[in-house]
Amino acid sequence: MAIDPAAPIRLSALSWVPEFAQGHVRDLRVRWALEEAGRDYAVELFDGRVPRPPDYLDWQPFGQVPAFHDGAVSLFESGAILLHIGNSCPVLLPVDPAGRARATAWLLAALNTVEPPVQQLAIINLFYPGEAWTDAYRPHVMAMIGTRLGQVDAALGDAEWLDGSFSIGDLMMANVLRNMDDDVLAQFPRLAAYRARAEARPAFGRALEAQLSQFENRAA
Amino acid sequence: MAIDPAAPIRLSALSWVPEFAQGHVRDLRVRWALEEAGRDYAVELFDGRVPRPPDYLDWQPFGQVPAFHDGAVSLFESGAILLHIGNSCPVLLPVDPAGRARATAWLLAALNTVEPPVQQLAIINLFYPGEAWTDAYRPHVMAMIGTRLGQVDAALGDAEWLDGSFSIGDLMMANVLRNMDDDVLAQFPRLAAYRARAEARPAFGRALEAQLSQFENRAA
Repeated sequence: MAIDPAAPIRLSALSWVPEFAQGHVRDLRVRWALEEAGRDYAVELFDGRVPRPPDYLDWQPFGQVPAFHDGAVSLFESGAILLHIGNSCPVLLPVDPAGRARATAWLLAALNTVEPPVQQLAIINLFYPGEAWTDAYRPHVMAMIGTRLGQVDAALGDAEWLDGSFSIGDLMMANVLRNMDDDVLAQFPRLAAYRARAEARPAFGRALEAQLSQFENRAA
Repeated sequence: MAIDPAAPIRLSALSWVPEFAQGHVRDLRVRWALEEAGRDYAVELFDGRVPRPPDYLDWQPFGQVPAFHDGAVSLFESGAILLHIGNSCPVLLPVDPAGRARATAWLLAALNTVEPPVQQLAIINLFYPGEAWTDAYRPHVMAMIGTRLGQVDAALGDAEWLDGSFSIGDLMMANVLRNMDDDVLAQFPRLAAYRARAEARPAFGRALEAQLSQFENRAA
């Protein structure tokens, strides 16, 4: 799937989110991929304190960010946007079909196997702090996170990336691994080093600064 | 990505799961896609009562089913397997790049936006029945499910499928919608009809029977 290099890319993002979410909103994934691909993009900002305008749902049916448009197609879901960008960028997705399919498997594993329990922990910690029921639930979630991180750690082993060269599979997995407290990840030193390796990529640094710079309440 | 039509496809599945899970194990998604594509496949069965053998993790790093092999590539994650099969089957994934990207967006929406709260409800109902903390948590999960189903319902409107012709986006969304009690989905009659339309496809019927027929403790 070729992207017209002349088409302007538009991406939706938020101009205000709570400090704890800054650097973790999902447009970061797409900004990172676009930086890896060397693509310019324009951002449409929405205020995270209020619902999106009704016509935004035509672009993103769930009202979330990011939504993406490149002149050829309007898309939602960060995973689908990464696959679309990767299809025309060998840095992000191998050209050979088998390598491409395996990178896609890791992208899906990040989103559908690892992220759900990670997201659960974030939800109970951030949205229901101090509620008694979370004391009973949290150990179950932590156990599942430990299981999943241990499995990713075993699959990674001592390799640099999950399957050969860096891909959108690594981009997404590293992104999911950022959404937990450092002391959780620290139990898996190889995974912590893997995440640090991903975050050391210049494209990631540019993407993170681009997201942070657009918050009107940027954390000090 | 072409699949060699002569390559034997292998799929992992389970020979025993609790009755509540029968007809809901994730190899169903892949069986359904293979039936739509008119592809034969061989099944390797594992006992769901015990952990997978250690070498299974080389095929599926999380020990889950399904894992897939088609002679060209070994894959895990049902979403990635569907994308791989869809790449060589226009019934499952449009040939035009924009339509393909949009079908992929719906596949990802099913897996990363709709399924997480649906899965949460299944987890608390099936694995922690009667535990007091679930009484406090369940309303939050139900509210999120209601929000998500309402958004999918609005996006579907009165259309037959989510984006033009039937695709792996519909296959996955319908599959996720099966994993909840009928009375939850019944609040969204258009979605209930959508799921029924998907389940009425002959390929779905063959896939469901194929999964059910392999349980040694098949529900009466």
